[in-house]
Amino acid sequence: MSQYAMQKSAKPTRRSRHPYELVRRAGREEFHGNLKVREILVGGVRIGGPRPVVIAGPCSVESLEQTVDVARACRDAGADMLRGGAYKPRTSPYDFQGLGIEGLEILAEARAQTGLPIVTEVIDPRLVEEVCRFADVLQIGARSMQNFPLLVEAGKSGKPVLLKRHWGATLQEWLCAAEYVAAQGNLNVILCERGIRTFSQGTYNRNTLDLNVVDAARRETFLPIFVDPSHGTGVADLVPAASLAGVACGAHGLMIEVIGETADPAEAMSDGYQAIRPSMLRDVIERARCCATAAAQEFIR
Amino acid sequence: MSQYAMQKSAKPTRRSRHPYELVRRAGREEFHGNLKVREILVGGVRIGGPRPVVIAGPCSVESLEQTVDVARACRDAGADMLRGGAYKPRTSPYDFQGLGIEGLEILAEARAQTGLPIVTEVIDPRLVEEVCRFADVLQIGARSMQNFPLLVEAGKSGKPVLLKRHWGATLQEWLCAAEYVAAQGNLNVILCERGIRTFSQGTYNRNTLDLNVVDAARRETFLPIFVDPSHGTGVADLVPAASLAGVACGAHGLMIEVIGETADPAEAMSDGYQAIRPSMLRDVIERARCCATAAAQEFIR
Amino acid sequence: MSQYAMQKSAKPTRRSRHPYELVRRAGREEFHGNLKVREILVGGVRIGGPRPVVIAGPCSVESLEQTVDVARACRDAGADMLRGGAYKPRTSPYDFQGLGIEGLEILAEARAQTGLPIVTEVIDPRLVEEVCRFADVLQIGARSMQNFPLLVEAGKSGKPVLLKRHWGATLQEWLCAAEYVAAQGNLNVILCERGIRTFSQGTYNRNTLDLNVVDAARRETFLPIFVDPSHGTGVADLVPAASLAGVACGAHGLMIEVIGETADPAEAMSDGYQAIRPSMLRDVIERARCCATAAAQEFIR
Amino acid sequence: MSQYAMQKSAKPTRRSRHPYELVRRAGREEFHGNLKVREILVGGVRIGGPRPVVIAGPCSVESLEQTVDVARACRDAGADMLRGGAYKPRTSPYDFQGLGIEGLEILAEARAQTGLPIVTEVIDPRLVEEVCRFADVLQIGARSMQNFPLLVEAGKSGKPVLLKRHWGATLQEWLCAAEYVAAQGNLNVILCERGIRTFSQGTYNRNTLDLNVVDAARRETFLPIFVDPSHGTGVADLVPAASLAGVACGAHGLMIEVIGETADPAEAMSDGYQAIRPSMLRDVIERARCCATAAAQEFIR
Repeated sequence: MSQYAMQKSAKPTRRSRHPYELVRRAGREEFHGNLKVREILVGGVRIGGPRPVVIAGPCSVESLEQTVDVARACRDAGADMLRGGAYKPRTSPYDFQGLGIEGLEILAEARAQTGLPIVTEVIDPRLVEEVCRFADVLQIGARSMQNFPLLVEAGKSGKPVLLKRHWGATLQEWLCAAEYVAAQGNLNVILCERGIRTFSQGTYNRNTLDLNVVDAARRETFLPIFVDPSHGTGVADLVPAASLAGVACGAHGLMIEVIGETADPAEAMSDGYQAIRPSMLRDVIERARCCATAAAQEFIR
Repeated sequence: MSQYAMQKSAKPTRRSRHPYELVRRAGREEFHGNLKVREILVGGVRIGGPRPVVIAGPCSVESLEQTVDVARACRDAGADMLRGGAYKPRTSPYDFQGLGIEGLEILAEARAQTGLPIVTEVIDPRLVEEVCRFADVLQIGARSMQNFPLLVEAGKSGKPVLLKRHWGATLQEWLCAAEYVAAQGNLNVILCERGIRTFSQGTYNRNTLDLNVVDAARRETFLPIFVDPSHGTGVADLVPAASLAGVACGAHGLMIEVIGETADPAEAMSDGYQAIRPSMLRDVIERARCCATAAAQEFIR
Repeated sequence: MSQYAMQKSAKPTRRSRHPYELVRRAGREEFHGNLKVREILVGGVRIGGPRPVVIAGPCSVESLEQTVDVARACRDAGADMLRGGAYKPRTSPYDFQGLGIEGLEILAEARAQTGLPIVTEVIDPRLVEEVCRFADVLQIGARSMQNFPLLVEAGKSGKPVLLKRHWGATLQEWLCAAEYVAAQGNLNVILCERGIRTFSQGTYNRNTLDLNVVDAARRETFLPIFVDPSHGTGVADLVPAASLAGVACGAHGLMIEVIGETADPAEAMSDGYQAIRPSMLRDVIERARCCATAAAQEFIR
Repeated sequence: MSQYAMQKSAKPTRRSRHPYELVRRAGREEFHGNLKVREILVGGVRIGGPRPVVIAGPCSVESLEQTVDVARACRDAGADMLRGGAYKPRTSPYDFQGLGIEGLEILAEARAQTGLPIVTEVIDPRLVEEVCRFADVLQIGARSMQNFPLLVEAGKSGKPVLLKRHWGATLQEWLCAAEYVAAQGNLNVILCERGIRTFSQGTYNRNTLDLNVVDAARRETFLPIFVDPSHGTGVADLVPAASLAGVACGAHGLMIEVIGETADPAEAMSDGYQAIRPSMLRDVIERARCCATAAAQEFIR
């Protein structure tokens, strides 16, 4: 046991710098106290301000019609940005892997029709350039949180990056991952908590949303932090309450999966049962904004 | 793996009834839908209604002066009930074990001076009767959640019971523990989530508050459910945001540890660093009530 | 975060002694190095020596015939002691709760017929005296690991105690629980690892057997430590390999659930699918003894 | 809760095949029962046979001298293959990232001088071809287990792949990751368990070695499975017992980090405190082979 303690105390001596020196709050006068957050502007949307930003859309881009329909419904419900996966990291090679570049083109069309900026995932460092041609924000998914070559390419691209926390990662590891992006000169990183894996998994939910980490991250870094209640619960019914809790504890935004008002969840190419309907989304957004206002105050915002 | 599946499916055949038949929502007309919750009245305080109830007070009862001072400060800050431990379940036998019956007498005096009903823990089935002479609500702590003889005695006593979730227990096990109380004819059980143990422990917090479980429990049982952000985070700084998140996702109340405005956390007999000050408590209560109002709606309340 | 660190460093100052002063190895000359273990003699069986001790038997005592049959088969397969539950801590109040005193009498009869000493669980401090009249070793189950009044009574009884680790407990908490027994003057405590709860639960097993803890415990305490591969896997097929791994990493014994050679697991009152057959037990015991011999050496034994 | 169950049952309908059809045991006559394992030959070393194979070497390749010295010591201690990292996936961008191609050249030189085949990690799909020019086995590290583009490139390369389990991955996810390699026509995949992340982390160890999964994997797939006791414990003292436990429960080999007999662990570029000395390695290998022989039998081998 003493050896273990030695190991931990010995580690910093091998580093020339704090492990996440660029993204931590300490020593940054421009983000003094817990008050100020780095604001990131994406296509007119202001991330990191007092108003929570809502990214909504389908899990996977499946067709032009599905994507545009859901995008419009999300916009009408009050969402600020559109999410949708064209490259999907899937557990089995026989699961639907996404439409690829065709999916990116569909997203661009949905943006043209709705005005919503696009957040979409990239999983291969060789495709960062291609995805950047379409995306307004590059999403790095949970499984890729420690894909360091990918983080470096995302950093070099200069695009804003939404960095999901791996379900098995500590806050420190997550901030170090953000540092890989920042070290390339790209400080436009948005953190996104999407649930950790605990013994509770499968007893009533898919993941355990770690909402404690939102406030802890706010104290440790000046980067904005979002909450993904869709993956964070894995069950559509639990998404509304998790969304409100997320903004109540200080999240700067939400990322929510949405399915068409009359679509069949069983027919979705991925994650149909954790997506909510546009009518529910509208309700969640309205109440989330009220909760953010009620909660807002010096000690958390 | 098939054997494991068989085991699970085989289990119910050995039971004559649903494992938590009395406390589940299903089949109870008087608590139809997700709307209605069993209301429990304790000394004029209504638990389970739309207004979140706040139980506050010191971790341990240490002296008459400390307890009365903190109790007054909690009442003035807007708390509804007083918590304080007279019998403390402590990890090591050499930790402070509580003042015992002297502590109960101090709590009774604090109630007389403030009017706040008392919530206090019992850890030994042989002492349930004694603790009932003083307490308005019997607290069953996390470590005792599956102390079945204790649950049976608490059930027989007829007193309202606040049942904390063990940090390693599933929702189903927790509801089954409540059923042990209910099976004695005592349906006045208040659930209390206080954080589960995950890999995250010790990286920035002491426990991971499982806020998903609040909404899931509301759908599964008609019993009211509280959140304890003090144990749920283990760090005073994180208590306010966790409190707001708790009520935003539907908790019927909060249980918060408080330390005197000028007391030294290092001098507390237990858990000093997770207790907040009365001035902070006042702020938390005000904002929590706003969040509850903002969040309240058919889908969660 | 600094607050959390302060909290941890502040804690010891409130204690007069090391939290598990009596059971730790440090400073005990008679158990110097990692070599020597406290030996506990139970009815002629030597626990803590180089030969692994096997405790085997049914999960629950269901009838005289069932118990005596399994006991004989275990003895013939090479087991040293008989396990069997008369008081069962069960998740739901509607699960079979054990035969109680009738079960204890059956165990006594099985001992009379086989010569095997009896290990049986006690879950209520008011019943310690009664259970001591029959048992050779008092078992404190995982759920009761931090039932401190029960630990105190078990300590006062003077009987050897087999203390299972709770599935959510750290090594330090477990040793502190042993200290509650030791502080009553009873150093005859046998530790028993039975699996912890992790995200892996239910994906192929019921618990994750933490075999790392066996060696770590051996370095930290002079108490003997057993492994329970039945609860540690929850699946009969996985019991043999887990048993061999247990002794290979230094366990002083195994505690294994056994079901009659031709009994139907679905008919067992509890845990039928994790119990192995006597023919498999014989094989496991033979190979476990070979593994213990192969593994034995200064650095672990 | 019913929604969650529906989601799980609905998933398979979207797949055309079993999620890990190529690597599972079921339906493969040539690997009938639990008996037969796919054997993989690497430079004269037979992986998957009854004799456990030992891969040993430094965590990072730091210099020619260090690498050759440790390689010789490992060979003399009985190791079969050499491990060493040239491309290191490190938590912080300011940690040592490995020597890159210079490190690969050093490994080739060490192979030339000792005859030991080389296992080394690749973390970037763009570098698979380069690493293949030097490596005998491509290691996919835990963090890359679900780096699907990397798995596809590793599959296409045709080289044997050692696939570590992510600390947050289920057995099913791990086998699906192996399937990504297999789906490219490369069935030469060696699984390697290296510990999962649990609440226990940091209390006495760095990870919890999940030895249950070894036997479970053997029943589910015909691929050989190794155990890494170095990462699986994170503490050098605990490596020997974990190694013996690994082979006792059926692992086909061990992967162990080694530090020079007189080197200072604090000076290692990575993980110095979990590496054992060559003299200890010799002892571990001798005893591990005895344990494997003692344990070997129909039910696990």
